[in-house]
Amino acid sequence: MVRRVYERYGFEPLETPAFENIDTLLGKYGEEGNKLIFKILKRGEHEGTGEADLALRYDLTVPLARVVAQYQNELPKFFKRYQIQPVWRADRPARGRFREFYQCDIDAMGSTSPMVEAEILSAVSEVLTALGFNDFTIRLNHRAALTGLLETAGVAASHHAEALVALDKLDKIGPEGVAAELTSRGIDADVAAQCLLLFSGKGSVDAPPLDRLAMLLRSHDAGAKAAADLSEIVSLAEGTAAAGRIRIDPSLARGLSYYTGAIMEIAVPDLAGSLGGGGRYDNLIGMFLGRDVPACGFSLGLERIIVVMTERNMFPATVAGGGVDVMVTIWNDETKIDECRADALALAALLRKGGLRVDVYPEADKLGKQFKYASSRNVPCVAIVGDDERAQGLVAIKDMKSGEQTAHPRIDAVSAVARKLEKL
Amino acid sequence: MVRRVYERYGFEPLETPAFENIDTLLGKYGEEGNKLIFKILKRGEHEGTGEADLALRYDLTVPLARVVAQYQNELPKFFKRYQIQPVWRADRPARGRFREFYQCDIDAMGSTSPMVEAEILSAVSEVLTALGFNDFTIRLNHRAALTGLLETAGVAASHHAEALVALDKLDKIGPEGVAAELTSRGIDADVAAQCLLLFSGKGSVDAPPLDRLAMLLRSHDAGAKAAADLSEIVSLAEGTAAAGRIRIDPSLARGLSYYTGAIMEIAVPDLAGSLGGGGRYDNLIGMFLGRDVPACGFSLGLERIIVVMTERNMFPATVAGGGVDVMVTIWNDETKIDECRADALALAALLRKGGLRVDVYPEADKLGKQFKYASSRNVPCVAIVGDDERAQGLVAIKDMKSGEQTAHPRIDAVSAVARKLEKL
Repeated sequence: MVRRVYERYGFEPLETPAFENIDTLLGKYGEEGNKLIFKILKRGEHEGTGEADLALRYDLTVPLARVVAQYQNELPKFFKRYQIQPVWRADRPARGRFREFYQCDIDAMGSTSPMVEAEILSAVSEVLTALGFNDFTIRLNHRAALTGLLETAGVAASHHAEALVALDKLDKIGPEGVAAELTSRGIDADVAAQCLLLFSGKGSVDAPPLDRLAMLLRSHDAGAKAAADLSEIVSLAEGTAAAGRIRIDPSLARGLSYYTGAIMEIAVPDLAGSLGGGGRYDNLIGMFLGRDVPACGFSLGLERIIVVMTERNMFPATVAGGGVDVMVTIWNDETKIDECRADALALAALLRKGGLRVDVYPEADKLGKQFKYASSRNVPCVAIVGDDERAQGLVAIKDMKSGEQTAHPRIDAVSAVARKLEKL
Repeated sequence: MVRRVYERYGFEPLETPAFENIDTLLGKYGEEGNKLIFKILKRGEHEGTGEADLALRYDLTVPLARVVAQYQNELPKFFKRYQIQPVWRADRPARGRFREFYQCDIDAMGSTSPMVEAEILSAVSEVLTALGFNDFTIRLNHRAALTGLLETAGVAASHHAEALVALDKLDKIGPEGVAAELTSRGIDADVAAQCLLLFSGKGSVDAPPLDRLAMLLRSHDAGAKAAADLSEIVSLAEGTAAAGRIRIDPSLARGLSYYTGAIMEIAVPDLAGSLGGGGRYDNLIGMFLGRDVPACGFSLGLERIIVVMTERNMFPATVAGGGVDVMVTIWNDETKIDECRADALALAALLRKGGLRVDVYPEADKLGKQFKYASSRNVPCVAIVGDDERAQGLVAIKDMKSGEQTAHPRIDAVSAVARKLEKL
């Protein structure tokens, strides 16, 4: 379903290798991210020196930026790709957080228009709605608004990156925790307090969040432009599948260091952390290419989605459905075992030609044992060719639920099984 | 197509993590394999010590054996799974050989019956036939036949593993190369010559390969049983999709050290190396579980198949087909840019609801430029809402091939595009 929605939004499929050169990944994810990159020993044999030259994908965005830089001349001006692949992080596993997990990414390259953000938010909203989510919220913020608020609070530029790492944890460790972390990183206590006032969405200005942000940033050029950007994105997105979902959240920082513009995250009430996140990163490709290419993307976390869907019983029953339509038995006659085996294989071939999913019981056990195995595997039908059936060119089909067994000419075996399956 | 055939044969899907504990993989692939395992630095941060505790999947068989041992009590007696995932080898890349590549595996656990080999050979033959291959050959041999021939030739048991590694290269380095490698590994020259005589399929016995093997091994218990096994497999497989494909090849050794019974490899004339291989490995699960579970499997190499299919032009044209049905333009009026953008998004939503794959041009460029972009991307149709269309509740659909442009009520936009697509 994710793939289908992404394709309806005009994104093309892309896969990249599991490895990147280690230098491609280092320095793109912030200080915490750097530590969580899985590194591979050089050519698999440098145990002695511990030299690593390759590393495993940490996300799908940096590999994409590398691809876009590398194949710039072959790609369209507005390159839009989706990518559904695993990524690896040397993190502590927790509920819905694994060291290997699938990301479902969409990214659009080549345009700074707020249309891009609106389309991306619409696409991921449509995915979640199609999967059955009706209570998700899109938190939206802007990196330049963050910078603007940090400068307004009096945080020195050299402390911005660290302050953002701390503020990104507001949800997790609360305002006291953030204040402690800010001061421990060398930010004055009163500046830290001012930070929390501005970022927590409370304080002197009582207005809707977008207006409040615009007012707080009105005398900060880049910040004011960021607030205007956000306003455009929100107003465009309100005409899409993202309508009613967006909340401006000045405390949303997103840990990754490559974002430059709008940043967004999707959450549901019963999961700490997010179902996905993204944002604009207009300089990342430039780190590989030497000139900037604007870009914006979003990543849905497949396992997070599955955890919530499982806990909420959102999966339709058909997804759990079994794999085999019919099991072919082997007639239990040791005196002509080769013939019985060949017959079972021939019958299986016939049934498979009819499109059925067919298992063949491998041993010439007693038929009762073979039936019992089929029952234990929830196989709906078994096929039997006994001496009588063979003599008459027939095959017997046994409905494992009712126990009813009927004989059919071999040529009708497929339709006989199909009729029994339809009744289920 | 691979997945569909595998499912018709009653194999269930399985995926395993990219990593295994390093001890799970070491010692399972022979001396050459061991060196080619990609090892991961412990928790991503042990650059100093170079300690590796995890390694990347080298194949799909050993991880499967680990899974079967770990979940033995929850799995059916005859567990059959297919797995299509990448594996990683620190090998030198060559045509059709990559350091990351996809294997398409089927494996059946729990039975020693030759039915298992026959079914597996039938399934992979059906995959290749379905993909359009009509000139593949299945080379078939047996590990116990190899041992029997080695003992008949006078190779000491302590040299068997090394001799097999050398003999496995007969295709690549020829008889002289193999003889040189055998003697360099401490095998007497006359024993090496005897080896080559027995393994090359030539020599004193002039008979069909299976009869020849049976005669050479008639006084070697395990070897004679191996020849009888092969005979049963061949006769059963002749009644399946593998019919006419099998060639007994006494020189086929397969490098991996875990095989215990039948071994097989599929080749086509125009590719050095194989499209896939497999065999029986009745002891591998026992290495994890403590008691043996019989097992047999086969692995198709996806990239090898793609290389040959590409070179032979075997892919149908539809596979290369484009991704977008219609591109929505933005009306180029800076005085009401917000309205024009919102309108484009609304129209895109309408078209997507109809199941179409829709791209939206992100910038309010001149229409000619937008059309040119759509042409360069081979988008068949574009949709336009200009001032006139908006006033009348219409949308214009332009066929990019004919240039023909027609106006339709918005409610008919989906069917108008669908009609134009049908004509293509």
